[in-house]
Amino acid sequence: MEATQTEGTPARRFVPVPFTDVVIADRFWAPRMRVNRERTIAYQYAQCKETGRIDAFRLNWKPGDEPVPHIFWDSDVAKWIEAASYTLATDPSAEVEALLDEVVALVAAAGQPDGYLNTHYTVVEPEKRWSNLRDCHELYCAGHLMEAAVAHFQATGKRTLLDALCRYADYIGTVFGTGPGQKRGYCGHEEIELALVKLYRATGERRYLELSRYFLDERGRQPHYFDQEARERGEDPGAYYFQKYDYCQVHLPVREQSEVVGHAVRAMYLYSAMADLAGELGDAALLAASERLWENLTTTRLYLTAGIGPSRHNEGFTRSYDLPNETAYAETCAAIGLVFWSHRLLQLDCDGRYADVLERALYNGVLSGVSLDGDRFFYENPLASLGGHHRQAWFGCACCPPNVARLLASLGEYVYAQSEHDAVVHLYIAGQGRLRLGGQTVTLTQETNYPWEGRVALTLQLEQPARFGLRLRVPGWCREARLRVNGEEVSLAGKVEKGYVRVEREWRNGDRVELDLPMPIERVYAHPEVRQDAGLVALQRGPVVYCLEEVDNGPALHRFALPREATLQAQFRPELLGGVTVLTGEAEYLVDEGWAGTLYQTRRPAAETRPITAVPYCVWDNRQPGQMQVWLRESC
Amino acid sequence: MEATQTEGTPARRFVPVPFTDVVIADRFWAPRMRVNRERTIAYQYAQCKETGRIDAFRLNWKPGDEPVPHIFWDSDVAKWIEAASYTLATDPSAEVEALLDEVVALVAAAGQPDGYLNTHYTVVEPEKRWSNLRDCHELYCAGHLMEAAVAHFQATGKRTLLDALCRYADYIGTVFGTGPGQKRGYCGHEEIELALVKLYRATGERRYLELSRYFLDERGRQPHYFDQEARERGEDPGAYYFQKYDYCQVHLPVREQSEVVGHAVRAMYLYSAMADLAGELGDAALLAASERLWENLTTTRLYLTAGIGPSRHNEGFTRSYDLPNETAYAETCAAIGLVFWSHRLLQLDCDGRYADVLERALYNGVLSGVSLDGDRFFYENPLASLGGHHRQAWFGCACCPPNVARLLASLGEYVYAQSEHDAVVHLYIAGQGRLRLGGQTVTLTQETNYPWEGRVALTLQLEQPARFGLRLRVPGWCREARLRVNGEEVSLAGKVEKGYVRVEREWRNGDRVELDLPMPIERVYAHPEVRQDAGLVALQRGPVVYCLEEVDNGPALHRFALPREATLQAQFRPELLGGVTVLTGEAEYLVDEGWAGTLYQTRRPAAETRPITAVPYCVWDNRQPGQMQVWLRESC
Repeated sequence: MEATQTEGTPARRFVPVPFTDVVIADRFWAPRMRVNRERTIAYQYAQCKETGRIDAFRLNWKPGDEPVPHIFWDSDVAKWIEAASYTLATDPSAEVEALLDEVVALVAAAGQPDGYLNTHYTVVEPEKRWSNLRDCHELYCAGHLMEAAVAHFQATGKRTLLDALCRYADYIGTVFGTGPGQKRGYCGHEEIELALVKLYRATGERRYLELSRYFLDERGRQPHYFDQEARERGEDPGAYYFQKYDYCQVHLPVREQSEVVGHAVRAMYLYSAMADLAGELGDAALLAASERLWENLTTTRLYLTAGIGPSRHNEGFTRSYDLPNETAYAETCAAIGLVFWSHRLLQLDCDGRYADVLERALYNGVLSGVSLDGDRFFYENPLASLGGHHRQAWFGCACCPPNVARLLASLGEYVYAQSEHDAVVHLYIAGQGRLRLGGQTVTLTQETNYPWEGRVALTLQLEQPARFGLRLRVPGWCREARLRVNGEEVSLAGKVEKGYVRVEREWRNGDRVELDLPMPIERVYAHPEVRQDAGLVALQRGPVVYCLEEVDNGPALHRFALPREATLQAQFRPELLGGVTVLTGEAEYLVDEGWAGTLYQTRRPAAETRPITAVPYCVWDNRQPGQMQVWLRESC
Repeated sequence: MEATQTEGTPARRFVPVPFTDVVIADRFWAPRMRVNRERTIAYQYAQCKETGRIDAFRLNWKPGDEPVPHIFWDSDVAKWIEAASYTLATDPSAEVEALLDEVVALVAAAGQPDGYLNTHYTVVEPEKRWSNLRDCHELYCAGHLMEAAVAHFQATGKRTLLDALCRYADYIGTVFGTGPGQKRGYCGHEEIELALVKLYRATGERRYLELSRYFLDERGRQPHYFDQEARERGEDPGAYYFQKYDYCQVHLPVREQSEVVGHAVRAMYLYSAMADLAGELGDAALLAASERLWENLTTTRLYLTAGIGPSRHNEGFTRSYDLPNETAYAETCAAIGLVFWSHRLLQLDCDGRYADVLERALYNGVLSGVSLDGDRFFYENPLASLGGHHRQAWFGCACCPPNVARLLASLGEYVYAQSEHDAVVHLYIAGQGRLRLGGQTVTLTQETNYPWEGRVALTLQLEQPARFGLRLRVPGWCREARLRVNGEEVSLAGKVEKGYVRVEREWRNGDRVELDLPMPIERVYAHPEVRQDAGLVALQRGPVVYCLEEVDNGPALHRFALPREATLQAQFRPELLGGVTVLTGEAEYLVDEGWAGTLYQTRRPAAETRPITAVPYCVWDNRQPGQMQVWLRESC
């Protein structure tokens, strides 16, 4: 068995199979990805165009013009380029390619002679370049443009944007650093750190990795750069709106952090970079910090939907076990960031803890971010709504829509991985993955109706027999998995290690592995310290978290209580919400009888039995507007 | 039986016995009133002095001086004068009288030649007088000064302040009105309307009543004064911070209102004035509106503690049945305002609905506003706290402390009333009330240990036998009241009308009436539409609402659930919190066992049995800081 990072120096041992080598052909994700390609990409281009975000790169804004290119606009266009490039990589489209060519040319041409590339600071406040790293997203935008450049290059082989961003990165490398005359700054919104790792991997230029390390290492040092920078602007550092630097995780050096704090998206992007660098640099202290933060998040601050960051105030974290449902902020981008982080940790250690959270996020708190039609988006993903929360066409701060688009377009990246001796299946999604193992292509074909059914059949195609390990994830939600290899039962007793079963043998072409992951409807309870969920129960089946919607159950969902002994049925409804499995049963519903004209009584409200239907959380708010609730009262 | 307003023109038929004719000598209120007199009055004077509120009346502020007299400072001093005058009226004190003389002289001397009297607008922004009635509390401050003037005059017979305020009122009467050249304005913060009624009653000058009616009638008319006024200031009326005029109940003419909306204190002061004027003017439309509003409030928007106004945003009302506990704003002033309103409705119709709410407010949401020591105050009165909510020494906006002081000092006013043929007992508080009935003084002496015990003995002292009705309130919380007159049981079956039993007979000196109001511990439930209380139970005994505090029960109060069948015991603890009856019993408490390192499980959290102790809500946060909860989960 291979060493994992807990047994030595962290390293990126489990490398994702690129999404370009993965085919997703199921009936859950494939339709969503098709809508993403065929609808969302064009829609978001139009939004970026209409709102001026794309034309901002023409750099012809003049004082008095409206709208004024905003400090974070570049990142929206960058994420759109990234998303569109991903779709192009798997599904060639002359139309998308032409759009991309146009936008990429504009963006690249916006690069200044010194390599600088930022619309706002080039035309609106040129004198303020690098003057407010704390608040103004300047390096954050650079990072997203780097991610876009790498994606576009890898999808098309065209170097226009990549070259522009390498120039920009090189320029950034001259401005920031510990050398004489350099600024010892870093961004208030992390992003460039993980982007530079991508740039390093795409170009092989180690200086980008070093620059990423610099940005990470510099964070939280004293004297504090944000203090100095504020004073240079003539501001009192103590007048910082968020008051404490934990808002952007700069309260401590990264290796000393152990509590997930502040703005959730920033935190996720930072932790993702920490995991990247831990692997690239073999930095055990970075990994240890990452693991501490992971434990803290997943044992005290994670919604059942894998939403994170309960508070609107800081778009982020509050206290342990503080998980309000109605007011949950749970930004779509934060759940996506959690996918990024989980995926990076999974590359260092094939541990089902990471894959379980990644899967929970994908099937719930991420996918809820976009409508079935692909053109309406949630910024916030609460776990209960009184009926006033709906997906929007766009946002002034439009980070979430293109973020979900780029994730869906590259979903294949999360399904398979490979290490020196192993093929790994992290997610069960019908389709194929092409791996390179022992000098040959190994194709894994998945047949499954996951997440609605837990039976998975994997067929291996090999050019010649080969010995390697096949690691199959046994999801944390599954308690009675069964495995058959070529029709023969393989006992899993004692064989599931860190959430994966590893079957090592000489594999031959046509070998068939069947994994059965029974998916009973589960009642889920929260830790007793979560006051908002005390006495409540949630429903989950497989990786899918359910909710009640008013459209199915009538108003005043808080009146429902699910009896402890009530049985529920799962039923696939092909006509509903694109085809989903719903849960049905009977619950108690508080009735008004006897309450006319009174607000308080000494008589307990009476309840009647009513049918309930629960639908997957990820598809709520795709029908008539109304209330929604994930957690329900449980009665005796 | 006397006619009540529902049978005809509204009139003030049940006139309160002045608090100067009432002795409160119980062990619940009397100690609080003593602390109020002996500690709070001096303490609040010192606060007003230290913060510059009193010296602002010297009118020697100059630009650049700090602090700047604030637009609502005058009202804080006014309420202090009112409170101090009330204490003086019942408990002469040379010290308090001297303080009052000093302050009253200062205030009166601040009157301008035209009668105007406002510190902020006299010295800080003299050019802006009457320019922003919507936001700037100018007439509100005038109203509070009028209340202070009436109180001081009635307590001392000294006319200094009364004369100054009559001049001010007369001047206001020239500025505002429907005549040529007059402003058709009114205040954004109601108060002057009820104050002018007091001024009318104290002086007999009907023009003050007319001015009050003008202010009331003018509200909500189109074109809207606040629109015009904003435009005159060069502002866009649509830029109003609160967006809609329901914030200050000016969205509709008062007679057309039927929903309690906006800022809760403003609403209560407005509705109080509406009830006053309904009675003074025999205005059935005003009364009808008042009753609609009352129904709306008490059947959909009232906390169990009689706190009102759940939202911090508008310090006021939201939607029907929206009663969050942890974030309940429930301003102390709003509960006091509800006492004022209830009391005024009770003067028009001796209906227990009003007295029940009045009593609920006094024993819960009002009294919670002040510490047992009399020098710490709640502005907000939530029904649950995670431990961070504590009474404060003072506030920048210090409306609540002197409001609770003036209420406590005049508590006697709420106990008894008299009509042409009846003596009325609204509240059961040991002590005495002196009524004038049929040309003689009738003294009612109450012996009772209310609110800890429900037995009340009333002795009548008369100069000579007289026939009249004695109306005794049978509280809404009491279901098995028993009555004895001179030792003989009087059946109450069918005799309790609108919450009062009326015994008419020829009363003789020494007659003794005994009322037994059994006070079992009650479990209280909220209307099923209140989502925040679904599945929860609260505890009440007599008029007293209980809560759990961390100091008695340990942390994480949300982990408690009270079994449906659990029995609770009431026990008077003389040493605790000044002597209170506590409720004790056993409840289930969710435990961590089996939850280490997990946040969600499919296993229901286990519970253990733990003792609980509940204390009256009104005295919470008088010991070690910690969590508090009124509503508890109820288990089977």
